[in-house]
Amino acid sequence: MLSTFQSGFRKSRSTVDDTFKILIATDIHLGYLEKDAIRGNDTFVTFDEIMKQAMQNEVDFVLLGGDLFHDNKPSRKTMHCCIEVMRKYCMGDRPIIFEILSDQAVNFSHSKFPWVNYLDTNLNISIPVFSVHGNHDDPTGTDGLCAIDLLSCAGLINHFGRSRSVEKLEISPVLLQKGNTRIALYGIGSVPDERLYRMFINNQVTMLRPREDEDGWFNLFVIHQNRSKHGATNYIPEQFLDDFLDLVVWGHEHECKIAPVRNEQQLFYVTQPGSSVITSLSPGEAVKKHIGLLRVKGKKMNLQKIPLQTIRQFFIQDVTLSEHPDLFRPEQPNVMLKVMAFCQEKVEEMLEEAERQRLGNPLTPEKPLIRLRVDYSGGFEVFNTMRFSQKFVDQVANPKDILHFIRHRESKDNIKECMDFEALLSRPTSEVLQLRVEDLVKEYFQTAEKVCILYMCVEDADQSLVNIPLSPLQTFHRIMRK
Amino acid sequence: MLSTFQSGFRKSRSTVDDTFKILIATDIHLGYLEKDAIRGNDTFVTFDEIMKQAMQNEVDFVLLGGDLFHDNKPSRKTMHCCIEVMRKYCMGDRPIIFEILSDQAVNFSHSKFPWVNYLDTNLNISIPVFSVHGNHDDPTGTDGLCAIDLLSCAGLINHFGRSRSVEKLEISPVLLQKGNTRIALYGIGSVPDERLYRMFINNQVTMLRPREDEDGWFNLFVIHQNRSKHGATNYIPEQFLDDFLDLVVWGHEHECKIAPVRNEQQLFYVTQPGSSVITSLSPGEAVKKHIGLLRVKGKKMNLQKIPLQTIRQFFIQDVTLSEHPDLFRPEQPNVMLKVMAFCQEKVEEMLEEAERQRLGNPLTPEKPLIRLRVDYSGGFEVFNTMRFSQKFVDQVANPKDILHFIRHRESKDNIKECMDFEALLSRPTSEVLQLRVEDLVKEYFQTAEKVCILYMCVEDADQSLVNIPLSPLQTFHRIMRK
Repeated sequence: MLSTFQSGFRKSRSTVDDTFKILIATDIHLGYLEKDAIRGNDTFVTFDEIMKQAMQNEVDFVLLGGDLFHDNKPSRKTMHCCIEVMRKYCMGDRPIIFEILSDQAVNFSHSKFPWVNYLDTNLNISIPVFSVHGNHDDPTGTDGLCAIDLLSCAGLINHFGRSRSVEKLEISPVLLQKGNTRIALYGIGSVPDERLYRMFINNQVTMLRPREDEDGWFNLFVIHQNRSKHGATNYIPEQFLDDFLDLVVWGHEHECKIAPVRNEQQLFYVTQPGSSVITSLSPGEAVKKHIGLLRVKGKKMNLQKIPLQTIRQFFIQDVTLSEHPDLFRPEQPNVMLKVMAFCQEKVEEMLEEAERQRLGNPLTPEKPLIRLRVDYSGGFEVFNTMRFSQKFVDQVANPKDILHFIRHRESKDNIKECMDFEALLSRPTSEVLQLRVEDLVKEYFQTAEKVCILYMCVEDADQSLVNIPLSPLQTFHRIMRK
Repeated sequence: MLSTFQSGFRKSRSTVDDTFKILIATDIHLGYLEKDAIRGNDTFVTFDEIMKQAMQNEVDFVLLGGDLFHDNKPSRKTMHCCIEVMRKYCMGDRPIIFEILSDQAVNFSHSKFPWVNYLDTNLNISIPVFSVHGNHDDPTGTDGLCAIDLLSCAGLINHFGRSRSVEKLEISPVLLQKGNTRIALYGIGSVPDERLYRMFINNQVTMLRPREDEDGWFNLFVIHQNRSKHGATNYIPEQFLDDFLDLVVWGHEHECKIAPVRNEQQLFYVTQPGSSVITSLSPGEAVKKHIGLLRVKGKKMNLQKIPLQTIRQFFIQDVTLSEHPDLFRPEQPNVMLKVMAFCQEKVEEMLEEAERQRLGNPLTPEKPLIRLRVDYSGGFEVFNTMRFSQKFVDQVANPKDILHFIRHRESKDNIKECMDFEALLSRPTSEVLQLRVEDLVKEYFQTAEKVCILYMCVEDADQSLVNIPLSPLQTFHRIMRK
């Protein structure tokens, strides 16, 4: 089984450097709100910070999980900023000491220059960047190009994980070697979730593995899809992914859950770096944002969290008016003024907290994002949020939408528990027949998450996966074949 | 005075290479009609041809006169094609053996990387490209960027001749030296003609000259403006340009007049390369298109025309129906059918001629552009051009607009002769006072073109300009100062 090792490990060894250092980031969304007077430069500033971190940490390469750009057709300014930052940090004389063992013409077959940029004798690359595309910057149009293809054509990025087929995905890994460590880097650029779900179900997704010493590779996989359940087939269950993987870098999801979490069925780890910009005023985006410094040596890995310094602060708070009968009741005269004063107090509290936290952190943008969600159910009335916001126009980055009125406070965990497998099987036959295979599978996996008894997990701290159990998908396919 | 020398000159010398070889092209209009099923790739194919010529001729650099892009915000495909061609031909190991003597931080002050690309240690440039911007790809928006700034940021082009001020232009030349030859390269990126006209008139355009050995430089100037007269002040008279110049490369005008023409007042030469794509079905675009191979040694120059092979053929013919009373008259029955047959014959003649000329020229696109301008005045009626064109839909590149009906045939030379200066002076005083200074100056220059007796031109075949006469503009300023 994979075991993690402590940072500082490298210092105890010498001679051959076997440790890959990889900077991991995703969903940088360059150009998001670029016309906003306050927040317009946020994405550019943070991208600069990220690439600077890559340089300062002397990483071997940067691995991005998609959505480098927010718009499918980024503005000239956005493209210019991006090129500027990449040329500034990714070019230079620092030698690159890992090799590519795979056929680059296959890995980068869609490129006009189908080889990794740092091996191009005309470009002096110090930090290669590898990226899949996201749903925001996916290939479109008759030319089948995406925004990062411009960077790829200019020799600034290595766009991988791209498939021309909508019928099947055959993922040929980029094989990297540094000293004795070998990484097989797999990627799938964003595909509509429903389609990819179906492709997995129909056994149309194949991850090719190196013939030589199949188990000697650290298998790293980058995906840019829904990880949380958005409807029946509108996400990719972790169980779909091959269990020979060691680490999955999950893009698209904006909440920073960068500490690797072990999937107990598939026995791989998943890291979800999260976005480096707040694109919605929701609780997930309020989680402190990080990028990762991944070290891989042999089959061991360590992921060091690097907090981002340039992220705009974001405070979100929920209040339920009916929970404060001592302060105001719907039937009182002047209740609205009292509620406004209450809300103002809450916002001011957040602003004070923001100010406190920002002190001594010169890179943090001055004005925070503030969101107060007000549950006004129980007979209260809403008031003019614009007028309310006027008071904070010079203090917050989002003066237009500080307040958000909601009627019935939603449960934070609003993912519906699905029927269990038994309930499904007890339905009348006609109803079952009408269900699509996908739905059956979905329900099966939802059940399977709790039914792990099928799998015998034998671990060895040193040797990594010894006895690889069948994944639910493999089990499913076996059942279907019978 | 400048003297030209024959191609092949270099072979008679040896040791130090003093001859600059410069490929000159302009108005490439990348992306023009890119969505047209037939003509969509024309601009990309020709750009490839141009850059290939630069490589094959082993030029020291490429000089572009603006409008590299047709659209201010080129499509992704267009930008991708452009980057691809530039990376393919402009990067490589061929050494660059000329130096930059000027302050690059001044020449390229607007760039994030304010130095010439071939001196960037991270880029292995074999052919530097210098370009001003045109009116199609000029800087716009709050970012003040233009399309070629993306190329500049990526290290693929050297964008010069740009000014941030709309008040005055101070043009600091890029100073180049190869062996004993020194070139001062001046440029003005496209400015609205009226504004630039006014700036010239108001003495707000300054061309800085190197302090050291002022007369030892070959002064090369690139401009992208109207050269032909579009209204009173909507063009730039050649006389406005400083007379210390040796060669002016005039962009923007699409007709190929690449053979240098001497301006007898200013004593410089003007070359007008013309566009490398036909963007309008007018006679000027039917002139055979070329790029130029400019050789400069000391103060001598030679410009070799290179015909472009990939240009789509364009045939244009004018017919006046009333000139064929033997064939048809307006009052005849079935006259329209006769006219249609006549027009069809004319188009077929052009198609046959196109076919003949294309034979043995495999790079020429298959379908030509055909335009028949039909003067139907004299009582004839127009007919459905779309139906007429149906016959040629598989043979021509512009089936939708082969025919163009005109009523009164315009004079080919429709530039109005303006009043002379004497006529102006004889107007009543009140009327004269209402004229703007620009108008006075315009009329003065129009007169001045014929009144060259003021200027004493002393030439020396070896020594170039010996006695530089006052230009009309200088004369004007002297008069105004008095």
